[in-house]
Amino acid sequence: MAVAPSTYPRHLLPLFLGLFQGTLLLFFALFVTYDEPSAQVEDTSLVANQVYSTFPFFQDIQVMLVVGLGLLLTFLPRYGFSALTHNFLLLNFSMQWALVLQGLLHHFHHGQIHLDLHKLLISEFAAVTVLISVGAILGRASPCQLLVMATCEVPIYLATEWVIVGCLGVLDVGGTITIHVFSCYFGLGVSKALFRATQQPLHPKETPTPSSDLMSLVGTLILWVFWPSFVAVLCQPGDAQHRAILNTLLAMSASAITTVVASSLLQRGGKLSPGHLQNGSLAGGVAIGVVADMAMPPVAALALGSLSAVVCVLGFRFLTPLLGRKLTLRDQCGIHNLHGLPGILGAAASVVAVLVASKDTSGSQPSQLSPVGGNASEVVEGQWGGRGVGGQALCQAAGLAVAVGASLLAGLLTGAALRLPCLARPPERLCFDDSLYFKIQDQAESPGPDSSAEEGALALKEQV
Amino acid sequence: MAVAPSTYPRHLLPLFLGLFQGTLLLFFALFVTYDEPSAQVEDTSLVANQVYSTFPFFQDIQVMLVVGLGLLLTFLPRYGFSALTHNFLLLNFSMQWALVLQGLLHHFHHGQIHLDLHKLLISEFAAVTVLISVGAILGRASPCQLLVMATCEVPIYLATEWVIVGCLGVLDVGGTITIHVFSCYFGLGVSKALFRATQQPLHPKETPTPSSDLMSLVGTLILWVFWPSFVAVLCQPGDAQHRAILNTLLAMSASAITTVVASSLLQRGGKLSPGHLQNGSLAGGVAIGVVADMAMPPVAALALGSLSAVVCVLGFRFLTPLLGRKLTLRDQCGIHNLHGLPGILGAAASVVAVLVASKDTSGSQPSQLSPVGGNASEVVEGQWGGRGVGGQALCQAAGLAVAVGASLLAGLLTGAALRLPCLARPPERLCFDDSLYFKIQDQAESPGPDSSAEEGALALKEQV
Amino acid sequence: MAVAPSTYPRHLLPLFLGLFQGTLLLFFALFVTYDEPSAQVEDTSLVANQVYSTFPFFQDIQVMLVVGLGLLLTFLPRYGFSALTHNFLLLNFSMQWALVLQGLLHHFHHGQIHLDLHKLLISEFAAVTVLISVGAILGRASPCQLLVMATCEVPIYLATEWVIVGCLGVLDVGGTITIHVFSCYFGLGVSKALFRATQQPLHPKETPTPSSDLMSLVGTLILWVFWPSFVAVLCQPGDAQHRAILNTLLAMSASAITTVVASSLLQRGGKLSPGHLQNGSLAGGVAIGVVADMAMPPVAALALGSLSAVVCVLGFRFLTPLLGRKLTLRDQCGIHNLHGLPGILGAAASVVAVLVASKDTSGSQPSQLSPVGGNASEVVEGQWGGRGVGGQALCQAAGLAVAVGASLLAGLLTGAALRLPCLARPPERLCFDDSLYFKIQDQAESPGPDSSAEEGALALKEQV
Repeated sequence: MAVAPSTYPRHLLPLFLGLFQGTLLLFFALFVTYDEPSAQVEDTSLVANQVYSTFPFFQDIQVMLVVGLGLLLTFLPRYGFSALTHNFLLLNFSMQWALVLQGLLHHFHHGQIHLDLHKLLISEFAAVTVLISVGAILGRASPCQLLVMATCEVPIYLATEWVIVGCLGVLDVGGTITIHVFSCYFGLGVSKALFRATQQPLHPKETPTPSSDLMSLVGTLILWVFWPSFVAVLCQPGDAQHRAILNTLLAMSASAITTVVASSLLQRGGKLSPGHLQNGSLAGGVAIGVVADMAMPPVAALALGSLSAVVCVLGFRFLTPLLGRKLTLRDQCGIHNLHGLPGILGAAASVVAVLVASKDTSGSQPSQLSPVGGNASEVVEGQWGGRGVGGQALCQAAGLAVAVGASLLAGLLTGAALRLPCLARPPERLCFDDSLYFKIQDQAESPGPDSSAEEGALALKEQV
Repeated sequence: MAVAPSTYPRHLLPLFLGLFQGTLLLFFALFVTYDEPSAQVEDTSLVANQVYSTFPFFQDIQVMLVVGLGLLLTFLPRYGFSALTHNFLLLNFSMQWALVLQGLLHHFHHGQIHLDLHKLLISEFAAVTVLISVGAILGRASPCQLLVMATCEVPIYLATEWVIVGCLGVLDVGGTITIHVFSCYFGLGVSKALFRATQQPLHPKETPTPSSDLMSLVGTLILWVFWPSFVAVLCQPGDAQHRAILNTLLAMSASAITTVVASSLLQRGGKLSPGHLQNGSLAGGVAIGVVADMAMPPVAALALGSLSAVVCVLGFRFLTPLLGRKLTLRDQCGIHNLHGLPGILGAAASVVAVLVASKDTSGSQPSQLSPVGGNASEVVEGQWGGRGVGGQALCQAAGLAVAVGASLLAGLLTGAALRLPCLARPPERLCFDDSLYFKIQDQAESPGPDSSAEEGALALKEQV
Repeated sequence: MAVAPSTYPRHLLPLFLGLFQGTLLLFFALFVTYDEPSAQVEDTSLVANQVYSTFPFFQDIQVMLVVGLGLLLTFLPRYGFSALTHNFLLLNFSMQWALVLQGLLHHFHHGQIHLDLHKLLISEFAAVTVLISVGAILGRASPCQLLVMATCEVPIYLATEWVIVGCLGVLDVGGTITIHVFSCYFGLGVSKALFRATQQPLHPKETPTPSSDLMSLVGTLILWVFWPSFVAVLCQPGDAQHRAILNTLLAMSASAITTVVASSLLQRGGKLSPGHLQNGSLAGGVAIGVVADMAMPPVAALALGSLSAVVCVLGFRFLTPLLGRKLTLRDQCGIHNLHGLPGILGAAASVVAVLVASKDTSGSQPSQLSPVGGNASEVVEGQWGGRGVGGQALCQAAGLAVAVGASLLAGLLTGAALRLPCLARPPERLCFDDSLYFKIQDQAESPGPDSSAEEGALALKEQV
């Protein structure tokens, strides 16, 4: 039976958030401090330089997540305000939650956690996984469901990332495997377990309008511009960072052009699909992350960018409808095409890059440690913790497998938990609609620009 | 009687602005130069480093003021173009006017004023006060009235700021007292004196539409992202700046979450109000400015951010309607809730922070001078010009009192001056409407997307 | 005869782009590498500093071109998606094409081209010329025509730039002559040769709506904010760059105010024209580029900014209609008013600046080489390759002449080539319409917000 908007339960959201914010305050009061102010002039200058070298990247990433990603999600014409707000809320919630968990996990020395910009940045990265996963269930889940999902996803991400990077030693400077692949399959798992429905007809509010498509494209362009900062922020300063920036720029430029080619070849009538452009242009950035700072020729970045755009567009055209039919899997924003497929492609590319780097005797090597001289293969082995070229390549593949497996499993469990009735999943009729959550003027009731009756009355009143 | 748009007087705006621009050119020709180019290589490198450390912050602030604040003001659905343009025009006018006045006041050495990026930044801060005050009367004042207001407000701000910071020695690195509190009460004073009317019914063009609310939220998000740059730009490089950035990030993150809690608890039916989100998310940034670089634990920043969001939402829910009823005070954008109340809260927090810092024997101290060693309380007293802890706390309170008092008085006088008939206040019927000032297609007359008749004619013409 | 949208030929675009991308991959595979990783710690730190000093400027410019310029072009209400996408596509295409050509021309040492951020930046500048020229024919040309235009324009730009800067030694740090003037007259030449039509009536889809005007203004504001980065990125670090930033800020601030004055004086009824604001506010940035780092007093920057705004508004008011009537010249975005006239003004200003600098015995000199001491006139002559003050002034004028002449001629030829039937120029009826190129819901067919029938059906379905 249809639930009237007026009886939709809304008390849980403030309760949940209020409790969280209170607990956070308590945790911060007990355990978190800043670093002691540095007593020496040299230290002050060092801190200043660290701020100048990190803060512009940090701001770029904030713009990406808050404005760019938020706008990208506004393609649902009557759900724009919710998309922006939920994205913003989840970023802040997940970031704070990751700060707490990371503090507990890594930084608990002598009962004190020392906060700095770098730790905030790492927490921001954890929050990104939540923002990506949301794309699978956007518009059909309540804010409470999204928050519970974030509560589950952040610790699972931190654990998975620790296994992949800390234990397996996977190289993934741009988070292709740890962030994009992980969050994609987590989101799909949640979607499958949450909606395990039969196929549903297209919702009338699901179709983008020209103006919502335009806003979404602006979001894409903002993400496209600042993506190099996301990939390069955690690189070693110097050559590695420089190369990561260049590789990302090349890959994304190739993606942009190849998306147009692929979309116009695959659409009947040769018209471009807005959805392809909004996503395909970014696919190169997803794929390049894992190899951005490795030693590879520029052509590899271009090729990877092109390939990932092709894969992304093919996914939208064929795979998403197929998964919808065969697995009744819903993927509202197509995150499998933007984050899943290009992420897997990037992971595969990293295996190749590692294998090729060792055979290459020209001295090119992953420069993260910038070793000087020596035979390339020796150097490479030395760098990779003595596990050898084949071992490192295997590790990259194992990292991918761990990310996919752990995220799918955890996502399915989380999705099942989200079916709890108290979490107030909105009824189908009220999906994709801002007016369920916001005191926003209904577009249908809007008096519109030609509210001539009211204006006339007002004019009359003035004349009297 | 209603004034027809065609007879609305528009000659004053170009006259006023043209005269101003001419005077400015004359003033610059006579008195303003750049610094001499530095003759030594070390100086060149020093200037380069200053540019690299200041310019990114400066650009962030420009984005905030021109794009972010402009978009925030577009919540009036038929007044978006005016809001963006007036904001842009006032920023430029006030900045140039502040350059002139500051040159005269502070930098008049040997008949020459040396211009640099830092002085432009200081002038930009003066201009911010005007942009905030405008929020109280947005949509109901003519551009000429706004320019006259700016002409009055900038010198009064400079004088007040000189008293508060220069004479009283108030610590206020983010401009909470000197900028936010001052401009809020100045704007309210202007509004009271200008409109001293009985209550008016809601204007039909005053209600936001879904799309204007969305644009306004995008503005909020842009402001939210870049706010740390605004607070930290004038801090001492190094630890103080690092801490100011972190404190601002924490405060704004707490604001964002608490706003959702407060708004959904206070609204009937639990729906969130767009206006609360657009303003409450920024309240933490207003409050934190005055204590951002002081020695305080991270939990204080979080608590201050949460509290200011609560205060802001409470203000919208209860205080604004109350002031409207009791004092017939109009506050179009709710600047009292975003800038006034959180500003006062921040000032109170600074008193507490000063008092607590002195009792704290762990060596934490306001690091603006980064003193090395010594007993904390001695150091603190040394820092604050020997006036002692209590003295400094008193100064902070006195600064707040001066800001509120001076701005209210000056605002009331300015508002009375704006009632001069020649300043062409728009009649009620034409308020909140772009078409009064811009040659913009009226939305009511717009042929709309389905201009099928015209298209048919054109198609016919082509076939012939 | 009218062509139905369904039969419009769309196979050429993927073919052309696919071929280009393939060739690019081949070229990169054969010839392009990165610099060898630096082996010494000092080099690493040097590279890191170069990244920190260039990358923020580079990102600012990317935002300008991708987001700012894209949004500026969305003033056509039903062509916004095309404008954003074509701008984005052309930027990427032209940048890659310029990379190839520049590699062939300048950097072909030992069969290898070494790629770095600076070379990408230079290619980006070449792409800007294409993005500006497009403004003349926006909405009436097919994507294939635009790509062919870009293919022709980039090599001609590189050759012209080499003549102007390399051979003539023209000083033009912000690209006023080499980029703005060149691309303006190239675009006008293309427009003239492509459309050589009689006058056409106003297209019904050509008139901006309030919301498209608003989006376009947001684009202007983004361009306005980041313009100083565009002008200053290639300056010598230190004083020259500092002065270039300040001069640009002053010129653009004066432009913003003067545009309001000029527009309201020139429009009947004193209403401001959105088009004037969208363009005039940027005119100062165009004009200042050529003199931004020269020794001149701040008042000169203000005056130049004001003058160029006046010229721009006058151009829109009188020259564009005149050129339309007399020469049947179409200039959709008014690039002649924003880039042509202010560019010529800037070039003239550079002649004056060079002449005045030599007479000035106060020691002010173009600081690009930061010479120390010596008599000003000697220094100046030494700097300008011994060609003397008059010679340098003559060179600046010659550079302008070369830019105008070469671009007009090349533009006319390119425009004639664009008339090839296979390039699929859209028929008049389908101009200015996204639905020709994009699978976008037609606004006329849109069910709109009040799709009550469908919703009712859905609600019914749920109740059953």
